[in-house]
Amino acid sequence: MARRLLVIGGDAAGMSAASTAKRALGDALEVVVLERQPWTSYSACGIPYWVAGDVSALEDLIARTPEQHRANGIDVRTGATATEIDLDAGKVVARTADGTESFAYDDLLIATGAEPVRPDVPGADAAGIYGVQTLADGRRVLDALAGRPRHVVIVGAGYIGVEMAEACVRRGLQTVLVGKHPTPMPTIDPELGQLIATGMRADDIDVRVPVTVTGFEADLDGHVQAVVTDHGTIETDLVILGAGVRARTELAAGAGLPTGIKGALPVDSRGRLDAERHVWAAGDCVESRHRVSGQQVYVPLGTHANKQGLTVGRNLAGDDMEFPGVLGTAMTKVVTLEIARTGLGEQEASDAGFTSVAVTIDATTSAGYMPNARSMTVKLVADRTSRQVLGAQIVGREGAALRIDTCALALWNEMTVDDLMMTDLGYAPPFASVWDPVQQAARAAVSELGRPLR
Amino acid sequence: MARRLLVIGGDAAGMSAASTAKRALGDALEVVVLERQPWTSYSACGIPYWVAGDVSALEDLIARTPEQHRANGIDVRTGATATEIDLDAGKVVARTADGTESFAYDDLLIATGAEPVRPDVPGADAAGIYGVQTLADGRRVLDALAGRPRHVVIVGAGYIGVEMAEACVRRGLQTVLVGKHPTPMPTIDPELGQLIATGMRADDIDVRVPVTVTGFEADLDGHVQAVVTDHGTIETDLVILGAGVRARTELAAGAGLPTGIKGALPVDSRGRLDAERHVWAAGDCVESRHRVSGQQVYVPLGTHANKQGLTVGRNLAGDDMEFPGVLGTAMTKVVTLEIARTGLGEQEASDAGFTSVAVTIDATTSAGYMPNARSMTVKLVADRTSRQVLGAQIVGREGAALRIDTCALALWNEMTVDDLMMTDLGYAPPFASVWDPVQQAARAAVSELGRPLR
Repeated sequence: MARRLLVIGGDAAGMSAASTAKRALGDALEVVVLERQPWTSYSACGIPYWVAGDVSALEDLIARTPEQHRANGIDVRTGATATEIDLDAGKVVARTADGTESFAYDDLLIATGAEPVRPDVPGADAAGIYGVQTLADGRRVLDALAGRPRHVVIVGAGYIGVEMAEACVRRGLQTVLVGKHPTPMPTIDPELGQLIATGMRADDIDVRVPVTVTGFEADLDGHVQAVVTDHGTIETDLVILGAGVRARTELAAGAGLPTGIKGALPVDSRGRLDAERHVWAAGDCVESRHRVSGQQVYVPLGTHANKQGLTVGRNLAGDDMEFPGVLGTAMTKVVTLEIARTGLGEQEASDAGFTSVAVTIDATTSAGYMPNARSMTVKLVADRTSRQVLGAQIVGREGAALRIDTCALALWNEMTVDDLMMTDLGYAPPFASVWDPVQQAARAAVSELGRPLR
Repeated sequence: MARRLLVIGGDAAGMSAASTAKRALGDALEVVVLERQPWTSYSACGIPYWVAGDVSALEDLIARTPEQHRANGIDVRTGATATEIDLDAGKVVARTADGTESFAYDDLLIATGAEPVRPDVPGADAAGIYGVQTLADGRRVLDALAGRPRHVVIVGAGYIGVEMAEACVRRGLQTVLVGKHPTPMPTIDPELGQLIATGMRADDIDVRVPVTVTGFEADLDGHVQAVVTDHGTIETDLVILGAGVRARTELAAGAGLPTGIKGALPVDSRGRLDAERHVWAAGDCVESRHRVSGQQVYVPLGTHANKQGLTVGRNLAGDDMEFPGVLGTAMTKVVTLEIARTGLGEQEASDAGFTSVAVTIDATTSAGYMPNARSMTVKLVADRTSRQVLGAQIVGREGAALRIDTCALALWNEMTVDDLMMTDLGYAPPFASVWDPVQQAARAAVSELGRPLR
């Protein structure tokens, strides 16, 4: 008889694992996936662009439908909400259209993802306050926008917050972005965050920082009409939450499974949460190891979810594959600004016990004399003793952000600033200066550190 | 008394070394630079964009003028052509405006650069046939274009050839590009070269390959009027040479100094050509070590010239710095095409003794559902045994080429395709898919190789 893999959650991590294992094992593995929603394998990161109008239909954001997965032999149950895990019995109870159903498993993968953080303040349950995590969330925002609101307040200035701010501005809304930190995008160091604030304001986003939301006011119909903050009340027609997400792990915790950093599931490098009882976890509900700090962190991103899912799938298929950890690489675009980061910021480096040096340089995205040259700023953080690159951040215009991958591979390979400075990167006037901006930053760091002693 | 550094050649390598050493040693070092032309520290790579009209003035291509170098204490002699090196006497004879002058040195840096390869065929000395290497060359081409020619033939389909083809097409000329290899850009593998040929033709460049030039016909004034090939005669108003460059090393060879690969100067990793007699060399006239093949190669590029110059400058200042070698990274743009490569092509890998596997994938520059998504093709070459990435090539539209830097750092750090596949690269829908195109290629290679045995 075939073994049965039961997957809770049908997005990136769950379906990557399911597809990988099924493809490898075929009939020797039965795969059942429980998914609350009608969709599988979709791009939550694409929702802001759907709202902005860049993407015309919900279907465009779906990489593989339940039907397509079923055609590959995966038993996808949409509309099935797992409500209880019984580890001793090896089964999961789910609420389905037909009532309650029980699913036995040999291996269980928990891929329950994340959910938007909702501010714990009075009025937060008013109508017209939207998170942006699922396609259903995106559809609700689009429905709200169809009512032609004029004012929107984005609460939270993380990646989703700034991307939704762009979407709203481009749709012609008066857009206020409220963030509790001194600058938008708290994963970017403050002096670069200041560039982001200035750039966003120039692009008509009313950035208000540091401002703390203390409540929401609703009208008689229970619909939000104002955001109350420690810097006054902001009237609005709708509110979008962009203050990040938290791991959805109540189900796992309820079964007695461990939780770790920020409530996420502490899996090992192979994706095992409870090896003895054949429980795996992957995606936005798990914690990861940060390769630079060596610490466990919670970095819920689609890139990791896909790789973690692949890892679990390969391991279920009898391989021995490790998820190698994360650098905290991330990037985004806000109207005309490109923003990217990897590794540790200056404060993070200090918190992780490094004595670091930081340099910031201004450069251009192409040779300075080219008409397409745009400004960009690169910050590098390096360890004073080992001279290793610990982190990098980029804020600039078109053509700036993709260079974060160069920095990410420098971190991945524990390169020193000396080595990075001398690498053979691509050069042609439409793309770069003869010293790429990343290398200009590395040179500045070498200069700051002095040449190593002989 | 101060030591004297004499530099022959005042462009990237020579002036980088001169500036670096002078800054470090100050009055303890006298620096004299002999430069044939009126300019120093200019971007030869920018000439096609000057010809195209992107760059309005010659001055825009000059990073630092002779006057600026002189203000930094460097004695720049423009219009001074070195004609003889006397190693035993430690002096160089140069032809200057005043006649012949002799310059004694304690250290000599040969940074004589490269010159366009001129086809060795009848009629190659006709008027109206232009190389593109110096600012004077660029000015001559611009002067020729001012005469409103209608037809141009570019001979040679290397980087300069395709960039000049873009410049000419954008200026409205009927542009024929003749290349002797089966596809344009012989440093790109043939199947990707085919994409380049197709793309260039779609952008109105008449690509003719493989075609060998057998001669040039001139009119009664001695001005070129046709290019004769093994596939017929092509009438033209002017000819631009884009068949690459060769090291200018006659001066060094004449002094009895060694020459190596393609006539280039065989320096050691510190930039020393003859340590005992204090002779250094850097830039487009030297050979380099290829980090992947381990072989000596001739890769004349501004990126290396600057780094080699910096290396020599630091070593003259008493440091001990090595030039770490090259990967053969290069990139270019041709109208709407972006082209980039690093490391070894499939044949090169074979020639270097590797048993390789090659994979080619089609991807998009951003998430496929985004309006800015453009097609791109990535080819990866990897070693079958070690699974290390040996080379990468990219052909695509806007947003494709910069990813070669990710590949370059993978090569630099001797990463396997398995490792590259799992790295933490940046992702957001406007910039990439959740698996970056480079990682998609790495996955395809892993799939082709099979997972490593446990």
